[in-house]
Amino acid sequence: MHRFPANLLDGYRNFMTGRYSEQQQRYKVLAETGQSPQTLIVACCDSRAAPETIFDCGPGELFVVRNVANMVPPYEPDGQYHSTSAALEFAVQALQVSNIVVMGHGRCGGIKAALDPEAEPLSEGDFIGRWMSLLKPAAEQIASNSILTAAERQRALERVSIRNSIANLRTFPYIRDREQAGTLSVHGAWFDISTGELWIMNGETGDFTRPGM
Amino acid sequence: MHRFPANLLDGYRNFMTGRYSEQQQRYKVLAETGQSPQTLIVACCDSRAAPETIFDCGPGELFVVRNVANMVPPYEPDGQYHSTSAALEFAVQALQVSNIVVMGHGRCGGIKAALDPEAEPLSEGDFIGRWMSLLKPAAEQIASNSILTAAERQRALERVSIRNSIANLRTFPYIRDREQAGTLSVHGAWFDISTGELWIMNGETGDFTRPGM
Amino acid sequence: MHRFPANLLDGYRNFMTGRYSEQQQRYKVLAETGQSPQTLIVACCDSRAAPETIFDCGPGELFVVRNVANMVPPYEPDGQYHSTSAALEFAVQALQVSNIVVMGHGRCGGIKAALDPEAEPLSEGDFIGRWMSLLKPAAEQIASNSILTAAERQRALERVSIRNSIANLRTFPYIRDREQAGTLSVHGAWFDISTGELWIMNGETGDFTRPGM
Amino acid sequence: MHRFPANLLDGYRNFMTGRYSEQQQRYKVLAETGQSPQTLIVACCDSRAAPETIFDCGPGELFVVRNVANMVPPYEPDGQYHSTSAALEFAVQALQVSNIVVMGHGRCGGIKAALDPEAEPLSEGDFIGRWMSLLKPAAEQIASNSILTAAERQRALERVSIRNSIANLRTFPYIRDREQAGTLSVHGAWFDISTGELWIMNGETGDFTRPGM
Repeated sequence: MHRFPANLLDGYRNFMTGRYSEQQQRYKVLAETGQSPQTLIVACCDSRAAPETIFDCGPGELFVVRNVANMVPPYEPDGQYHSTSAALEFAVQALQVSNIVVMGHGRCGGIKAALDPEAEPLSEGDFIGRWMSLLKPAAEQIASNSILTAAERQRALERVSIRNSIANLRTFPYIRDREQAGTLSVHGAWFDISTGELWIMNGETGDFTRPGM
Repeated sequence: MHRFPANLLDGYRNFMTGRYSEQQQRYKVLAETGQSPQTLIVACCDSRAAPETIFDCGPGELFVVRNVANMVPPYEPDGQYHSTSAALEFAVQALQVSNIVVMGHGRCGGIKAALDPEAEPLSEGDFIGRWMSLLKPAAEQIASNSILTAAERQRALERVSIRNSIANLRTFPYIRDREQAGTLSVHGAWFDISTGELWIMNGETGDFTRPGM
Repeated sequence: MHRFPANLLDGYRNFMTGRYSEQQQRYKVLAETGQSPQTLIVACCDSRAAPETIFDCGPGELFVVRNVANMVPPYEPDGQYHSTSAALEFAVQALQVSNIVVMGHGRCGGIKAALDPEAEPLSEGDFIGRWMSLLKPAAEQIASNSILTAAERQRALERVSIRNSIANLRTFPYIRDREQAGTLSVHGAWFDISTGELWIMNGETGDFTRPGM
Repeated sequence: MHRFPANLLDGYRNFMTGRYSEQQQRYKVLAETGQSPQTLIVACCDSRAAPETIFDCGPGELFVVRNVANMVPPYEPDGQYHSTSAALEFAVQALQVSNIVVMGHGRCGGIKAALDPEAEPLSEGDFIGRWMSLLKPAAEQIASNSILTAAERQRALERVSIRNSIANLRTFPYIRDREQAGTLSVHGAWFDISTGELWIMNGETGDFTRPGM
């Protein structure tokens, strides 16, 4: 029962004989000099949408926050523990990243839960319910839109969630300031697990389109 | 300024012609049937320690929470937004993972900040300071140990942080229950960025040792 | 009862037919010309950590002091008998070694005793207690660190003991002088009995890392 | 200047690919279960007379004290630091060895110094002079014996020193008690560096003879 999962140890051995041995020097340098990633990415915990895989990134490239449904809460300097806000602060203020990317994806379980008003809490604490309530007004509006199909409602809220996170990013004074000074830019993206398509958000209109390949 | 980062688009093209085209069928099936990862991993945002890379995992294998210093707060059903607790609940209650792995790593910037009592807040909100205060008692005890080198203090707190997260995991009633019922097991691991070494925590003693290769 | 231990006589026969017969000439020359080892090593008495074995050294290579927990007391020209200080003086002043290595090791019984404030003296004279009191301030600081595991405290003090011995070496005027003149260098090392790993101390920081193999 | 001696690192690599890899399991077990050597050996620091080499002993077999001229001081429970007495106490009381062997050797530099009344102190502290003064009455008597050759005086004092150490061992109450109870035996041996001969002390007469091979 308490043995470390064997598939992870096997994977680790592959890493050591493969990527690590190819990039040994890079790992050493990154350890010595510290990380200086250009990009912070806020992504979902979903096992099918790892940012390093989708963007084929090596060590040192992406500073990655992953929570359910890739959400950024609004700026709330209230003395509580804020996992995501702490990571933003570290990435922007200490590491001085140049880009923030909020990446959503299709078939997101958190978004699906937010669209189901009948959903029972998963536990007495109902942490998922509270976390997804960050999207509540949007979720209610979309859930009640009966002329969209279930899949269309799901995809709509997945994209609303990305725009919502980006709007919340801009409630952080130091993000707003840097964006205005031109030293930081903020982006949205959405990944389709089934087809592998990446859709990029247009910063002006909020629409998502596929980049030219 | 607002163009999507070119290196990410290049990486995405590599993904499409490489891993995605090799695993197209797997992505399609995972999209249709939904994810059913066996393992939840709580890891750090650090750009040098991506779990999918270190464990050489493909799509569908790891449900991944990433926050600064791979921390799990204690169970606090207080109606606040709890990013990490929400992800735990989703992974354990909805996805029914069999394993939780807390993975720390060397040269962790969050841990370094926690050990520096003179550190200025990075922003007025001091989100990092508040987040790292989850480790405050341990950090103070280690920071005051003047006969250890700075690197030794850092490594000690990195490992204490893993044990602390694991202790906090067990304050969640549904995790404790499943662990006792034998349907869920909890593990610790620590990754050395410089050497690529993985150290596994002994569940009995809390000590870290290298797995046989 | 008073027969010389048979296993030692057997081992001696192996030595005569093996290494001695291969290196007969070398032994003869070393007897005629005297020893001129380049290295003094201060190691522990522990039966699992013989320096000649770990460094695969032949006759004439290592001048070896072994005491419990590889300790060097500070320079105390007080007219008492000082076993370790006498050996240092002989190695540096008479034999003019170029290197001093202080080698500690894992699972050291002396270090374990130093970390146990409740330990009963082994004899009325309490020689071990007095000898280990050379490490007392460090041992107390580490023993009180309750968030480290017992094994972590043990390893921490094993390494502190090496740094402590090295600091004490530099209280000997003739060692300090030669080090400054560049004719003598001082090193630390730590041997892991279980894995066979050797960790080398960085002279600048005091940290221990594994040498490239 | 401050690089770890290259010949030692080379030797360590030989150890890892040679003896350690052959005896990996034995090292692991010795680490887990702790050492339980049958024999404590008090030997000289001399680089030409390593006990593990001469008795062809593997890990876990010999608990080894090495000081200049393999000396045991008399029992002095005076609150000073006593390196050799601490090691005796640990080996006999904690590890409960069955045998103590005092091993001297030919061409011993410490013995040579003790026989030279004109010798200048090697340093202001004169640690060697004080340490060798443990043998002073015997050394004076032999030094003044002008009908022996220098080599004969040297060999005579080398053997007197072994008998002296054995007599001092018996001033330790717990050694005397165990010897009388038949649970501990005490032996002398002398190694000839040039010829490889081992001479064993007869416990009754104090004479040294070669064992049958």
